[in-house]
Amino acid sequence: MRYELYYWPSIQGRGEFIRLPLEEAGADYVDVARMRRRGMGVPAMMRLLESARSARAPFAPPILKAGDALIAQTANILLFLGPRLGLAPEDEAGRLWAHQLQLTIADFVGEAHDTHHPIAGSLYYEEQKAEAIRYAAHFTAERMPKFLGYFERVLKNNPEGGRWMIGKTLTYVDLSMFQTIAGLRYAFPRTMRSMQSAHPLLVALHKRVAKRPRIAAYLESRRRIPFNQQGIFRHYPELDQPG
Amino acid sequence: MRYELYYWPSIQGRGEFIRLPLEEAGADYVDVARMRRRGMGVPAMMRLLESARSARAPFAPPILKAGDALIAQTANILLFLGPRLGLAPEDEAGRLWAHQLQLTIADFVGEAHDTHHPIAGSLYYEEQKAEAIRYAAHFTAERMPKFLGYFERVLKNNPEGGRWMIGKTLTYVDLSMFQTIAGLRYAFPRTMRSMQSAHPLLVALHKRVAKRPRIAAYLESRRRIPFNQQGIFRHYPELDQPG
Repeated sequence: MRYELYYWPSIQGRGEFIRLPLEEAGADYVDVARMRRRGMGVPAMMRLLESARSARAPFAPPILKAGDALIAQTANILLFLGPRLGLAPEDEAGRLWAHQLQLTIADFVGEAHDTHHPIAGSLYYEEQKAEAIRYAAHFTAERMPKFLGYFERVLKNNPEGGRWMIGKTLTYVDLSMFQTIAGLRYAFPRTMRSMQSAHPLLVALHKRVAKRPRIAAYLESRRRIPFNQQGIFRHYPELDQPG
Repeated sequence: MRYELYYWPSIQGRGEFIRLPLEEAGADYVDVARMRRRGMGVPAMMRLLESARSARAPFAPPILKAGDALIAQTANILLFLGPRLGLAPEDEAGRLWAHQLQLTIADFVGEAHDTHHPIAGSLYYEEQKAEAIRYAAHFTAERMPKFLGYFERVLKNNPEGGRWMIGKTLTYVDLSMFQTIAGLRYAFPRTMRSMQSAHPLLVALHKRVAKRPRIAAYLESRRRIPFNQQGIFRHYPELDQPG
């Protein structure tokens, strides 16, 4: 099965949560909007989004094409891909738990995005900077400790030991957790340093994922788009003020 | 199977997206935090949330208990409940499409919430009113038309006709769409009136769901908590200014 991923070509964004499991599994996939070949690139993604007359048209990228299936919404794509890539628990209860954690990560990532865009996605950061400073102060003081504390407890309470979020092997949830920590470290380096010692299992998880041979190779490749100031995670020093 | 729902007892909130399918299916369920019996009420919900040592502890309500299963995250609960209540498509592709729509509804509802809390959930509305007015202006002018236009097209492009969001029978997605429209009408009555004629299929869907015998009975019962100023959908006239 050759998978086709449709996502903005210049950012990690939500697409990165799909790229990571495809890379970890060594899956055959094309990152369509990043290809310069005829019929690909951003125009191919726009055609998919603007196919307004088609049944089951997606609202926004990322979008995965797998044979006849066209699937959108990051967590939904992972729900579909996880078992096919061998990166999800086998039993229904385990899959629901993985999906529940993924949706909680999505909530966290959504709030991280809103630190620089608290008013509207259609405005520039500079047009909502005052509100962003106020939002980010609550995010770093209240929300980051709450979410990170929760995920640290999930690792701690994993009956199979605290190496992975679920059970005793890596799942797509670990890859999403890795990406979230990496993004938060890029966006909020001072705050993350101040919280490091309280979250040893998350710190170790991030390191463990980064050392997976395929992930390590991916992170060093040109396929990994660097963090930048257009993505979900952006570094504005004025938003990174640990209390 | 007797289901136990754990959610805040004084608001519709995200719990309402679970209550509606349970009501439509005539399921045997207990709304635990609303019961005054010993061992129930809000303390029972808090015990569940504070069971920090237990594996698979949820991050936040709503939470569904079904036998041994403990499931959180609204869309995840519906993914689990839908097939069991006969309110989801039979095939995997249909279920993923239903879930994709549900997650898009969740994004829309999250933004509707943020109109009155754009800075922090820990602050009162009055403490973030200036930002709320700015956020809501973008929400009503840009986001409501975008989301409502999308869902109207989903109905229009349903190959089985525009009566239901998916296929030719009611699913949990229709119930969530109904709840979203009802909430937006409560919170933004002027804006919703100005958009009504552009979304005839959504207007008809809302009416069709409200007339289902069990839903109609539920809406008239004391089990349906009225909309109020503590929920996701709140009516502040200053936020409801159609352009």
